[in-house]
Amino acid sequence: MPDFKISILGGTGGPFEHSTQCFMIRPVRKEDSLDSICIDGGVGLGSIARMLQYNPENRTVDDFYGDETAAGQPVEKYMDEKLLPNIVKGFPKTLHNRLNGNIAQKAMNIYQHIGEYYITHPHMDHIAGMIINSPVIFEPAVLSKKQILGLPFTIESMEKYIFNDIIWPQLSSNLLGRLELKSLLDQEVHISETIPEWDIVPFKVYHGSKVADKNIDVSSSVYIITNNITNNTILICGDLETDHTGPNERKLLDQVWTYLAENVKLENLKAIIIECSNSASVDERRLFGHLSSNKLLDELQTLRNKYNNPQGLSNLHVIISHVKMVYEDKDPRLIILEELRTLGNKRSGLENITFSVAVQGYTFII
Amino acid sequence: MPDFKISILGGTGGPFEHSTQCFMIRPVRKEDSLDSICIDGGVGLGSIARMLQYNPENRTVDDFYGDETAAGQPVEKYMDEKLLPNIVKGFPKTLHNRLNGNIAQKAMNIYQHIGEYYITHPHMDHIAGMIINSPVIFEPAVLSKKQILGLPFTIESMEKYIFNDIIWPQLSSNLLGRLELKSLLDQEVHISETIPEWDIVPFKVYHGSKVADKNIDVSSSVYIITNNITNNTILICGDLETDHTGPNERKLLDQVWTYLAENVKLENLKAIIIECSNSASVDERRLFGHLSSNKLLDELQTLRNKYNNPQGLSNLHVIISHVKMVYEDKDPRLIILEELRTLGNKRSGLENITFSVAVQGYTFII
Repeated sequence: MPDFKISILGGTGGPFEHSTQCFMIRPVRKEDSLDSICIDGGVGLGSIARMLQYNPENRTVDDFYGDETAAGQPVEKYMDEKLLPNIVKGFPKTLHNRLNGNIAQKAMNIYQHIGEYYITHPHMDHIAGMIINSPVIFEPAVLSKKQILGLPFTIESMEKYIFNDIIWPQLSSNLLGRLELKSLLDQEVHISETIPEWDIVPFKVYHGSKVADKNIDVSSSVYIITNNITNNTILICGDLETDHTGPNERKLLDQVWTYLAENVKLENLKAIIIECSNSASVDERRLFGHLSSNKLLDELQTLRNKYNNPQGLSNLHVIISHVKMVYEDKDPRLIILEELRTLGNKRSGLENITFSVAVQGYTFII
Repeated sequence: MPDFKISILGGTGGPFEHSTQCFMIRPVRKEDSLDSICIDGGVGLGSIARMLQYNPENRTVDDFYGDETAAGQPVEKYMDEKLLPNIVKGFPKTLHNRLNGNIAQKAMNIYQHIGEYYITHPHMDHIAGMIINSPVIFEPAVLSKKQILGLPFTIESMEKYIFNDIIWPQLSSNLLGRLELKSLLDQEVHISETIPEWDIVPFKVYHGSKVADKNIDVSSSVYIITNNITNNTILICGDLETDHTGPNERKLLDQVWTYLAENVKLENLKAIIIECSNSASVDERRLFGHLSSNKLLDELQTLRNKYNNPQGLSNLHVIISHVKMVYEDKDPRLIILEELRTLGNKRSGLENITFSVAVQGYTFII
């Protein structure tokens, strides 16, 4: 039985500002509740409202790369066929059934029940929507309280550079009492207050270096979410790159793979949502803190070796996000998906991974 | 003859993140050029791409407040009938005709030719899209250079809090040489480098106070753009409120009205795009640095008095932006528009103002 409903409010790496990363997650076992958490907040309420307007039968993908008279690409192009039965256009019917009013009111009602935002890193494309939506916590008909959580480098940056009464009103003030910024501890289990059956463990990872000083690392996070009753687990990543290799550098992403292999049975690992910003054709020096399809396969190879399962990572669902929508004739997400499938097929133990794209506007039920 | 093509990439005051303020302006007299400037950058490339997909005949307004099976409200509800002949759904045909490739490529081509962003103030909903779009300046097929301009409080905040290698990579670095942050002088004429026939004058205005200390003012800007050949002029505002009245407070918005009355003939004042975030029903203590419909009418009355024209502000086009899309049964923009028309009709000299809404996805040719 599936455990997680993951709605892709946004899933690209820009530069289009309306589809940046935000994943809204609800538990399958609580059909009678709207409660959710989000991983990142690049977009939000605007995306929710558009999803509420979808015709669920129209299983196409908004895409700016096709024939402009076409109404979008069929979703089958973006999903592994094994995962197709697990996706819904927009939100599941059970959620629609619990909402009243017009689209704006319904969207605000869904927003009201987002209890926690887990932010991977404080880059604009992962926080902008969440910030712009935030005044809705004071909207009388849909009052709410929210936590914004992350590793200390994220939370301290949000306090200093965002909720500082200059870039945004200091709505996180204790005096207002509705928006709490809260630091998590690296690699320590945090129990979600919104969904208490979820254990959430953050891991710090590398995400390139500063423009102004190439010797200073930029950090990001990944989150491992485990249902503490069923042990079913998903891994959700923000931006990241492979581990740095200097003599004083720590292994970071490697620790994530070790943790999974040591703590999560392969059959409980329901999906990995991970960035793959670039095509394999992008020069290594131009990845700027991101993965490419070949680098992602290297990481999956590491995970495969740590599990050391005779069948390899058989039937693991890998869902890629944060593809950079570059100037191309063809949708870059389809280029990268093809690369992952072709190159993955040649790697021992990765042949039976399913690769799909975290397409904006769809819900994965896994 | 009209002078300005103003495309509303976004025109609300949130909380929906996909429609925040950005106005792209091109000169009517340069049909053979894509060159444009933007006032604010709440949204950008994503909005441009969607506008390129529009069917120009489908003159409806995306709206989350109507019947959810309806395809949007007719645009006539949002525009004064005198302005209707001057609006186009999406972009004018002359722009479409100059573009090649798929929608993504066309959108990046338009983006390439945005030479300058004039930012009214550094709040997230006025800058987020511009920041998230910014890596496209390095896209090989559509390389570009851009300036981000504003009064010192805006530019210094962007340097310190946004392009700081923490919230966003420091793409404004001189080493990269493509994105220049540039401070303007208050009330001094600045000649646009992108459109040299435009003189642009920024004015500092009030925009509430800090949450953490009610005694510290928050600032915003308005821009007066004048074609220095025809003298035709538009006033474009960001967020603002009426002047503060304390003994040590300066008159700010009042200086804007004085400047217009002293420097721009009423027949050359082609339009005022101004925020009207709130309905007249909102308590004065809950305006939080914004106008309401009655406050806006007070300001127009001041302008009317300064012009002291026997016909009042006859045929002046006032286009309202930044309406807060609150939890309501009816589109708040229509509520406020109705208030402005009803209350305006009762004020001497304001009866013949035309009131319209800066609806996302439309171009005003004025």
